[in-house]
Amino acid sequence: MKIAILNECFFKQGHIDRLKKLGEIVSYKDTDNEEKTIHRLQNIDIAIADQFIAKFNKNVLENVKKLKLLALNTTSFAYVDLKTANARGIKVSNLPGFSKQSVAEFAIGLMFAVNRKIAFGDRFMREAPFELDPGNKDHQKFIGFDIKGKTLGVIGLGNIGTVVAQLGLSLGMNVVAFNRSSKKIRGVKMLNLNEVLKVSDVISIHLALNSDTKNLISNEEFELMKPNSILINTAQPEIVNTEALYNAIKSNKISGVGIDIGTMIKTDHPLFKLENVVITPHAGSFTEESFFVNLPRMIIENVESFVKGKPINVVN
Amino acid sequence: MKIAILNECFFKQGHIDRLKKLGEIVSYKDTDNEEKTIHRLQNIDIAIADQFIAKFNKNVLENVKKLKLLALNTTSFAYVDLKTANARGIKVSNLPGFSKQSVAEFAIGLMFAVNRKIAFGDRFMREAPFELDPGNKDHQKFIGFDIKGKTLGVIGLGNIGTVVAQLGLSLGMNVVAFNRSSKKIRGVKMLNLNEVLKVSDVISIHLALNSDTKNLISNEEFELMKPNSILINTAQPEIVNTEALYNAIKSNKISGVGIDIGTMIKTDHPLFKLENVVITPHAGSFTEESFFVNLPRMIIENVESFVKGKPINVVN
Repeated sequence: MKIAILNECFFKQGHIDRLKKLGEIVSYKDTDNEEKTIHRLQNIDIAIADQFIAKFNKNVLENVKKLKLLALNTTSFAYVDLKTANARGIKVSNLPGFSKQSVAEFAIGLMFAVNRKIAFGDRFMREAPFELDPGNKDHQKFIGFDIKGKTLGVIGLGNIGTVVAQLGLSLGMNVVAFNRSSKKIRGVKMLNLNEVLKVSDVISIHLALNSDTKNLISNEEFELMKPNSILINTAQPEIVNTEALYNAIKSNKISGVGIDIGTMIKTDHPLFKLENVVITPHAGSFTEESFFVNLPRMIIENVESFVKGKPINVVN
Repeated sequence: MKIAILNECFFKQGHIDRLKKLGEIVSYKDTDNEEKTIHRLQNIDIAIADQFIAKFNKNVLENVKKLKLLALNTTSFAYVDLKTANARGIKVSNLPGFSKQSVAEFAIGLMFAVNRKIAFGDRFMREAPFELDPGNKDHQKFIGFDIKGKTLGVIGLGNIGTVVAQLGLSLGMNVVAFNRSSKKIRGVKMLNLNEVLKVSDVISIHLALNSDTKNLISNEEFELMKPNSILINTAQPEIVNTEALYNAIKSNKISGVGIDIGTMIKTDHPLFKLENVVITPHAGSFTEESFFVNLPRMIIENVESFVKGKPINVVN
């Protein structure tokens, strides 16, 4: 088998050595366009691909005649033309849950950052250091709540949502959850979506984006939430309607929001003018463990199992 | 008994009603200087005082002839002249641990904010929204670590440090701790200070400030820490030497810091120019529960027990 690593930045020598046992390896630093991708995959059986850079569209997949396995470095396979892959008999493997711990911990981190006004307070301190006084009315906007004993509502109990629910329980929260199909997690009460929105002090979204979930949280849903509640979204931003969110915070229907993927929000959007809004650059999976431990380990396992004829994590 | 509430902002009607059962109540909004304090405490037996505003120095304590109990609204009694209080037979009560949950949760929140670059990422997003790419070398400064399985070093196992240690365990961390006297907490390994500094990925300080702890963490201590480690200080800032801290982060001896009390750090201090520094305005105790549930409840219990002749939480 000939194996091409299209972007080697995630692999250390130990990983390369493991792959060498499975076939002949060629490795590149910068496969960042269709032309390079097609050229480098001539005579290659297995491609280890960087989804952050290279897209596997119809053109690419029709021009890599020998390819048998496309081993992705992501959970998502949204940028792969599966129809063409199927037509050409190319299997596609992904990395389900490789960053579930880091995204779940990030959601919990955003919960604290929003609830306790950490990013907001840090911005104030950089303008002029001061000390909070609980008797000062102007300082009351810095008051949060103790997490212990509060209710966490998890929307979506997949790989990530399940870890978030467990972290909530471990912090002493009551945890309720909504999932399309009912799930049993010890200590977690399953409710329908509207009930979760009504009873939760913290709502955390962990759904895939599709036509059912786009704008799932909009004006009507914000009406159901508690005025002191906070919303955390580490999933795709389109699940929450941005204008409805802006209006909900502005009119105190909820007290704050944490959003991990903000690329669709323009810098001049008035959301950035509101005080208790935290927006991060899709940092949920950004840990040493996700990208430099779990990611290479799972890719190698996917390639190994394919070579041995018992493929795992194949999506097509 | 005549009871004066010098700053009523922490009390709701239910609290006032409970106090009325103990004596005659007078209540004020704004006792914010010595003259008012002395004037309002003539003929008063019990003063419920707001330490954030009124200081009980020698002059005040020598001129409140009838005062028997000074019921503080803080854990600290640093602003009370205890020598004069003792000479005049005035008992002073405080609120040990009234905000331990909220400060401990804040320390955990700062840990996530620093480790996962939440405040830092939010600042970047406000300038120009972007999306992180793990293969981009410029983005590697946003990489944190998974908290699960890492080592948390707690320095000081008082009311707050004990809760922080327990929260660390509940998040799946290994927890080690240093305390002046040895303490037993299930799952927590006691070490000496230098050992804690050497083995910890996250170090959280929970000590009182005194001549032994001032500058406790300085150049030599930073030399012992892991290069990827982060330091969290929700205690008094003077425990960490600011210049040593600045140099430690600048020269990558540690990777970041969270400081909750930054009043001694001037806005133009170069610490604010470093990327992974989070500084908040003494927000650790700033929750609804600390100030509007625990604080009034504990003050009333202190007054009640004093009136019944079995005083609790008396510091002198």
